[in-house]
Amino acid sequence: MTSDDRSKGMVMVLSGGVGGAKLVLGFANLLEPDGVLVVANTADDFHHLGLHIAPDIDTIVYTLSGKVDRDRGWGLKDETWTFMDALARLGGEIWFNLGDGDLAMHVERTRRLAAGASLTEVTTGLSVALGLRVRVLPMSDDPVSTIVSTPGGPLAFQHYFVRDRCAPRVDGFCFRGLEQAQPNPIIMQNLDAGRIAAVVIAPSNPFVSIDPILGLPGLREALFGVPGPRIAVSPIVGGAAIKGPAAKMMEELGMPVTAAAVARHYAGFVDAMIIDRLDEDQADDIRSLGMEVVVTQTVMRSLNDRKALAADCMALVKAFAGR
Amino acid sequence: MTSDDRSKGMVMVLSGGVGGAKLVLGFANLLEPDGVLVVANTADDFHHLGLHIAPDIDTIVYTLSGKVDRDRGWGLKDETWTFMDALARLGGEIWFNLGDGDLAMHVERTRRLAAGASLTEVTTGLSVALGLRVRVLPMSDDPVSTIVSTPGGPLAFQHYFVRDRCAPRVDGFCFRGLEQAQPNPIIMQNLDAGRIAAVVIAPSNPFVSIDPILGLPGLREALFGVPGPRIAVSPIVGGAAIKGPAAKMMEELGMPVTAAAVARHYAGFVDAMIIDRLDEDQADDIRSLGMEVVVTQTVMRSLNDRKALAADCMALVKAFAGR
Repeated sequence: MTSDDRSKGMVMVLSGGVGGAKLVLGFANLLEPDGVLVVANTADDFHHLGLHIAPDIDTIVYTLSGKVDRDRGWGLKDETWTFMDALARLGGEIWFNLGDGDLAMHVERTRRLAAGASLTEVTTGLSVALGLRVRVLPMSDDPVSTIVSTPGGPLAFQHYFVRDRCAPRVDGFCFRGLEQAQPNPIIMQNLDAGRIAAVVIAPSNPFVSIDPILGLPGLREALFGVPGPRIAVSPIVGGAAIKGPAAKMMEELGMPVTAAAVARHYAGFVDAMIIDRLDEDQADDIRSLGMEVVVTQTVMRSLNDRKALAADCMALVKAFAGR
Repeated sequence: MTSDDRSKGMVMVLSGGVGGAKLVLGFANLLEPDGVLVVANTADDFHHLGLHIAPDIDTIVYTLSGKVDRDRGWGLKDETWTFMDALARLGGEIWFNLGDGDLAMHVERTRRLAAGASLTEVTTGLSVALGLRVRVLPMSDDPVSTIVSTPGGPLAFQHYFVRDRCAPRVDGFCFRGLEQAQPNPIIMQNLDAGRIAAVVIAPSNPFVSIDPILGLPGLREALFGVPGPRIAVSPIVGGAAIKGPAAKMMEELGMPVTAAAVARHYAGFVDAMIIDRLDEDQADDIRSLGMEVVVTQTVMRSLNDRKALAADCMALVKAFAGR
């Protein structure tokens, strides 16, 4: 294989919700649709009110289809909330906000799953209906559930994340079903066929968005076989997380809240870290872990920011391929 | 039992959706809450998008709680339709309109049923949440499904009624599950305990709203034990149905579209018919069936009309008790 061949093929982006979806949108705008394969965390999927809710898939799909509410980062823009109001009057469970339009996704997904379709088939069908050309795959068709361990006892992830607003102190995580889960067969087929040129870990929560993906039996090993680099974009910038509880979790787990600590978390798997200019002083520390470091602007405010960060990733892929 | 005792106890109102709900509202405004027991047809209940939908229960509950959309006669007022728009974009089944607020009822009902509650328990819980004081009971906790027989083959009721807008010619009905269904135990308990003074058949569709109720094993016999009269209000006025396909069905079944034909349909069970002034010329014909006839205004435009018609029913109950 020549160095030129090695830069071809797809980039596989491992992603959680809001932060990851931003970078995924950058890739979708930078590359051809068949240049990206998005792998969405499903360990925060859950059943609520009888519905199968897949928050990370939906955030990615809504983001790619241009339908996401940009202010919230999740859910649909131009949303109405009549369902929640009516549910409150009925005495139903209202801690998890479900917009009226968003409900269509959950109801239709649940219906198709009950009719025997796999989560992959459902996700592809709904993505295509919304005009997506980039393929978004659930990490697995098998159920995996994140349990957050706290001093007060274990909490189902969405109870921790939404109902309890990440207030409980975290002392660990477990992923129910992960050992028995198969990685999405389409991911494995693409890896086996050598169609994946490189892997990018989006700036998502390392503990609850990325670790479950990398913990799928056989997947981490298969990702080691990718010819190009495995790159991670730090979700920690200037000692804080752009969105979500990653920084709070690191603190509670006794880790420094730094890009370097994220790099240490991924050490042994990741070849290169992309960190923000704010964290440039940590570059040497990260290099000492045997990783390459790219310092750039990782905070994505505009679509151009998203594309630029995807381009930074692609430059790294090319650089590795040129060796 | 003195004649005075016999006029006490509850009036049991057998009802379908829109038309029946109007009279039910009249009773609710005329009598104390424990003076009425509403029995709702559930043979048009169905599963759609994974949800248990009970159209007649909901129409009655929305009507009694003041939440019904008065123009449509069903569904909620101040409704939004964001879910349906989103479902259409996803390529979902959109022939059955589900308002965003209405969805809360279906989702919450389905959730509670899946958790093991009976339809009676769910209906009572949701009714109380909406402030209802009159008891609304599903005719049965067991599933019964109306099949409309047409020259083109059998149709599930809501496919006939909503999807196909009652266009197919009707040549019969069958009620799947009816032979095996038990009447709601609370209905039977009240009948056995002698707490039901009289029975009123609301101006609902005789074939698809009332026949399934009266066809429940043991119920018709039990209703014969009621001390007061069994009264039916004609849903046919001036040769037409106020709402719904009753008139079209009668025509297709080769019956005259008259209040007298409705009376003939109920003959042997009903003691008295309440018909509209427009149909006064049919009174003798109906009397010849051995029924009493009350001629009054049966078209209910205002709340006062609803109360007045309920009062006409109660006057009949009192008249029978006085004998």
